[in-house]
Amino acid sequence: MVGELPGMTLKAIGIVQNKVKQVPGSGYKWQKIVSEIVLDDSLTEAMDNLDEFSHIIVLYWMHQSTEPAPVKVHPKGRAELPRVGVFASRSPDRPNPVGKATVRLLRRQGNVLTVQGLDAVDGTPVIDIKPYLPEIDSVDSAKVPSWITKH
Amino acid sequence: MVGELPGMTLKAIGIVQNKVKQVPGSGYKWQKIVSEIVLDDSLTEAMDNLDEFSHIIVLYWMHQSTEPAPVKVHPKGRAELPRVGVFASRSPDRPNPVGKATVRLLRRQGNVLTVQGLDAVDGTPVIDIKPYLPEIDSVDSAKVPSWITKH
Repeated sequence: MVGELPGMTLKAIGIVQNKVKQVPGSGYKWQKIVSEIVLDDSLTEAMDNLDEFSHIIVLYWMHQSTEPAPVKVHPKGRAELPRVGVFASRSPDRPNPVGKATVRLLRRQGNVLTVQGLDAVDGTPVIDIKPYLPEIDSVDSAKVPSWITKH
Repeated sequence: MVGELPGMTLKAIGIVQNKVKQVPGSGYKWQKIVSEIVLDDSLTEAMDNLDEFSHIIVLYWMHQSTEPAPVKVHPKGRAELPRVGVFASRSPDRPNPVGKATVRLLRRQGNVLTVQGLDAVDGTPVIDIKPYLPEIDSVDSAKVPSWITKH
């Protein structure tokens, strides 16, 4: 079925800049990492009003992920946990290596967004920015299995 | 800057099937719409364990969006609201027309997921499925401007 579908090509709209130069191990404290997202100059005006939101959703291309993607993975890369389907995980190694992060927007200056908590290494291509809307992005009382919350 | 970046090509991993054959107007009650996501057969095992989650995140390609994307849009397509930067909106008309929806997973049967609340028309290519994890996908006390919540 996949073969019958048209190709879909993404354009990088910008690049992540931060101090994380290599993919760190699972459990890395991304929450504290401050990153700049430098957008293409031509898209500066398309960022207007974004700073009226406290949080934004960033979609990015995990350019260092493994190809081809595995079918099953250990949750959080921890070998002691039983393998699960890759779509039941947040592993970067997936058929389309698109990451999704909800991050705090600290400030916007022209074509540069400063954000906190983005789990992407320096140089990661950004493909979309959306405002975070609790009404559609947040779910009350969602159920998750215990293996994903194990620390 | 964008020109210096490598192309990034997505593969459709499946297709949305539902009764919504044409893009409806803004304000459509997607919350009640039940859709099937039919995944490529080769990815059936990659869906294992997904049904241990009550909600999933679906990334999809909004193949009917407008090209080239506008820089500014009226929020929710409502002409009476002042235009904002497209990245401050959830408009489908954006540089990379990738949609992101958090939906309830009603059931998984083999390579078919049945979900509720997916705001995508029949035939929409799906590019990724992720489990919804409140710990990283939900934010307490996020701030949004009043124009986005106006009904």
